[in-house]
Amino acid sequence: MEGVYITDRRALPFNHEEVLCRNFSEVALAIKEMVTQGGGPLEAALNALLFTYRHDESELSEAVLSLSSARPTNTTMKRELESVMERYRAGENMEDVVSSVFRRYDEIYDRISDIGESLIEDGDGILTTCFPEHTFMLSMKKAVLGGKHITVYVPETRPYLQGAHLTEPCLREMGIECFLITDGMPGHFMRCGKITKYMSAVDLALPSRHVVNKTGTLGNAIVAKYYGIPYYAFSIGLDESMNADEIVIEYRDGESLKRISGVRTADEKAAALYPCFDIIDPELVTGIITEGGVI
Amino acid sequence: MEGVYITDRRALPFNHEEVLCRNFSEVALAIKEMVTQGGGPLEAALNALLFTYRHDESELSEAVLSLSSARPTNTTMKRELESVMERYRAGENMEDVVSSVFRRYDEIYDRISDIGESLIEDGDGILTTCFPEHTFMLSMKKAVLGGKHITVYVPETRPYLQGAHLTEPCLREMGIECFLITDGMPGHFMRCGKITKYMSAVDLALPSRHVVNKTGTLGNAIVAKYYGIPYYAFSIGLDESMNADEIVIEYRDGESLKRISGVRTADEKAAALYPCFDIIDPELVTGIITEGGVI
Repeated sequence: MEGVYITDRRALPFNHEEVLCRNFSEVALAIKEMVTQGGGPLEAALNALLFTYRHDESELSEAVLSLSSARPTNTTMKRELESVMERYRAGENMEDVVSSVFRRYDEIYDRISDIGESLIEDGDGILTTCFPEHTFMLSMKKAVLGGKHITVYVPETRPYLQGAHLTEPCLREMGIECFLITDGMPGHFMRCGKITKYMSAVDLALPSRHVVNKTGTLGNAIVAKYYGIPYYAFSIGLDESMNADEIVIEYRDGESLKRISGVRTADEKAAALYPCFDIIDPELVTGIITEGGVI
Repeated sequence: MEGVYITDRRALPFNHEEVLCRNFSEVALAIKEMVTQGGGPLEAALNALLFTYRHDESELSEAVLSLSSARPTNTTMKRELESVMERYRAGENMEDVVSSVFRRYDEIYDRISDIGESLIEDGDGILTTCFPEHTFMLSMKKAVLGGKHITVYVPETRPYLQGAHLTEPCLREMGIECFLITDGMPGHFMRCGKITKYMSAVDLALPSRHVVNKTGTLGNAIVAKYYGIPYYAFSIGLDESMNADEIVIEYRDGESLKRISGVRTADEKAAALYPCFDIIDPELVTGIITEGGVI
């Protein structure tokens, strides 16, 4: 059927399913419902824009608004959608514009992962958080191809288990030594010297060097600092449009904490809170790895 | 049927089940398999000793050995079992000795929770970890009865979910405001000022002020220190017989991390690590709350 197909990351690694979205509203809803996350929403949103263009150009502005607001912390997605629209309004061909954005991201991922790889030393134990996306994964792969022996520690990342469902299988399938741990264990492995670097992707990086990433990142960054372990954040670019005090931390439905794959993990009557992102202050960030270098 | 019945904490809060152990070996096995934890093993082991005494006194020494080694970090259990045996060998009546130990613990819990309560201020937001047992729970209850308004933040405590399964229902049923969070979220709530104290029970406290507790405690203690939040550890007594460098952190079967209530949360092929305790260094511990006062 016609539409935008999005791999349902919530079903991985047990099932490979695609969610069919028949219009931009359904793509926005899928993003809201965590069908995809990290770098996925940008890709899905660009495809939704292209799809809208092909079917009803008059809805393009509404599509940009709807998609941009589906994940408020993903300001990269918003910025790219607006930039595509600007070029389109200036007379460029929509198909070409979107293709050029996809091509540009491939180049960015390649450059960033070269820089990431250069920071990795033979024998490193690397802690990550959530699913750290293309840039981190490519850095690890390049490090291993370059003959460096590394071990990656992967917290499962509750409540959605992106670490267990995406990161661990992805690293393992690429032949990289990795261990699944719970979100409470990084302290132990840092204290006993197994972890020498903490590296995560971030949802947002600001010129002030504040970064925003999945809940849990803040605690890990503080523990890393305590043990003198550097924390590097992979970012496809700084968001110049925001200040740290403008960041609104999304509180999602606490019910998500009370089940795993449909199985209850807590009493129905429990009150649960789900702040889904952390703000990490600049003094905790050793460097932000961008295409221009380490900031 | 005759034996030692142990409430199966793994089945709470959804099912109230008792595991029947027909001899000390089965009690030791139940402790190993996490049927009970925290203060539970001591109680189960004392009952197992009494049961062995009533059925076959000749097995008492073997029972002490078997039970003591079922949870190596629970040195209180080992110490109490040995002390009971010493008094028994010196001619005291076994039934009386065990009763006196149970009575003494009730008094200890009462005194410790008085001290715990005295540290709590009206309006406190209190983070805990795992299931913090009698002393913490009684402190919270006494604080609320004394008119203090408190809010407790309860990390779910993976992989066994003691926070979600035991701590949250226990607090809620006592009428104490509490919120379930994931193990990655304490950082967020400490950064935004919601948490003013961190309080946990500990499995082991040493005269050097090192404490040992559930995995996750170390990270929380470091983050608390970073934000200037005091960390208090409830302990029924210091273990004078050990040094910090002698502590062996138990690595349990990593398979536990790959399922929740029988449902897979990770790929079968994943390698998982499960260090189940943290060692928390003295500089992270504001005070150890014992029956003699705050150390």
